[in-house]
Amino acid sequence: MASVAVIGAGAVGSYYGARLAQAGHDVRFLLRRDYDAVAEGGLRIESHHGAFALDRPAIARDPAEIGPVDWVLCGLKTTSMEAAPRLIRPCLGPETRVLAVMNGLGIEERLARALGTDRIFGGLAFTCINRGKPGVIHHYEYGQVSIAHLHDDPAELQRALALWDGATVEFSVASSIIRARWEKLCWNVPFNGLTVAAGGVTTEAIVTDPALRAEASALMEEVVAAGNAELAARDSAERIDGDEVITRMFTLTDVMGPYRPSTLIDFVEGRAIEVDAIFAEPARRARALGVPTPRLDQLTALLARLDPARV
Amino acid sequence: MASVAVIGAGAVGSYYGARLAQAGHDVRFLLRRDYDAVAEGGLRIESHHGAFALDRPAIARDPAEIGPVDWVLCGLKTTSMEAAPRLIRPCLGPETRVLAVMNGLGIEERLARALGTDRIFGGLAFTCINRGKPGVIHHYEYGQVSIAHLHDDPAELQRALALWDGATVEFSVASSIIRARWEKLCWNVPFNGLTVAAGGVTTEAIVTDPALRAEASALMEEVVAAGNAELAARDSAERIDGDEVITRMFTLTDVMGPYRPSTLIDFVEGRAIEVDAIFAEPARRARALGVPTPRLDQLTALLARLDPARV
Repeated sequence: MASVAVIGAGAVGSYYGARLAQAGHDVRFLLRRDYDAVAEGGLRIESHHGAFALDRPAIARDPAEIGPVDWVLCGLKTTSMEAAPRLIRPCLGPETRVLAVMNGLGIEERLARALGTDRIFGGLAFTCINRGKPGVIHHYEYGQVSIAHLHDDPAELQRALALWDGATVEFSVASSIIRARWEKLCWNVPFNGLTVAAGGVTTEAIVTDPALRAEASALMEEVVAAGNAELAARDSAERIDGDEVITRMFTLTDVMGPYRPSTLIDFVEGRAIEVDAIFAEPARRARALGVPTPRLDQLTALLARLDPARV
Repeated sequence: MASVAVIGAGAVGSYYGARLAQAGHDVRFLLRRDYDAVAEGGLRIESHHGAFALDRPAIARDPAEIGPVDWVLCGLKTTSMEAAPRLIRPCLGPETRVLAVMNGLGIEERLARALGTDRIFGGLAFTCINRGKPGVIHHYEYGQVSIAHLHDDPAELQRALALWDGATVEFSVASSIIRARWEKLCWNVPFNGLTVAAGGVTTEAIVTDPALRAEASALMEEVVAAGNAELAARDSAERIDGDEVITRMFTLTDVMGPYRPSTLIDFVEGRAIEVDAIFAEPARRARALGVPTPRLDQLTALLARLDPARV
């Protein structure tokens, strides 16, 4: 069994941390907002697969209380990237691996610069999860997670498989972190973006409005083109199959109902939205690669202005 | 002197109607919201060229009270296009001309189908005008109006010149209504559109934000390309000079300060916004002409969703 520190125990961090604890791992949660509630009542996961609870999870307000672990599961918002190294460092030993279950591009590279390059993994979670009352996580749909290593190192991916083996999580490893990140953006760009830019609507409003659905599809095509250009530029033989991914994303989203992506919740609640990692960084890479992304560019400019944390 | 009916006496209709009255024409205003205020206190124009007032303008609540005139100046919003023929018809005699000072595409064609094709003119007003208290119009900047005839008939354009001769309005005739309409859209599409989609901001927020300014410019390029394609498809030798127009639009807008385009005011005040004429119709024409307008398409889909009058 491994020791795991969950840094950034929002919806995603709490859910996957709880699944690892359920599988027997020694999981310690760094909490801020929900510390008192979890100390008192535990952590409860209201999952469509069935509810379960950690009655007395190991929790901390300071990562120094957690100390070095085998794995750090980082579920911070990218808007807190500045704070990530300071929060993760107390949990690092020489062999510690760091798994960033976050959205957007450039995350692993930034963590690698601060924390050392060989230990960094990216986790691509495709799941409908929201926070409920303090100490409660609602898990509505899906839950599969794909893990990639920053250098696509097969031996390192075996380590990740060993961690997740036995957890009630649909789990896979990705052979290319670049491909995996861009594929995930095929969902996050249109759905995190258009739900905000359309005035604060759910994914259902996007997929059921023919014009917005067409725009979501066209945004995915831009993301696929940019992702494939980056794969080509890095001499990877991997490619994103645009038709397959776009069809899959709509098939998955059509049954989500009125789901609110994290960016929409942040927007509606007046918190910073993840403009840079999910929108601006992909747009910058596309521009550097010479791939036109007119819709992504316009959406990025609008979201930067709509960001409640805009200075 | 001519008799003129102002149908749709909002900011633009009231302003240009008052200028024609000031020049000695017999101008009769169809009023609804402001009827009592104007009956009591007249119509006051607070212009940056100097204030002036019509103390006892001819006003009516019903176009039948106005009766047949030489000119109808239609300043309705395109969201009221359904009502336009019914409101204009009582003011028509055999020789009556109709000048639509409205934004967007397809307006003259729709009026022509209902009212007869030879009498229809389009007016392209480039001006910063907002309604103030009932009976008061604020005129901040500019004011030039360009008049085009639906069939680009030179003799008809002479009629229009005769009407405006003597009015304190910078006036010109346009040799091509298609070109004039698309040139005007180079302003309306980015500024009426982005001010709403960026969450309700002024033109100043667009021109001073580098990313939004770049998006405004890119939208203008799409409009120019579509407009030139329509001119070519109609065998017109006229073309829009994109560089000249885009430079001019920014030069004019850079000094407007925190101006609120009409669409932004409608949006903020919860009224229907002019999605179809200013955005959807240009996008449809571009598509039919095979001109890609990805930014316009996305903006149109977002605005259709943001429209307070969306059903």
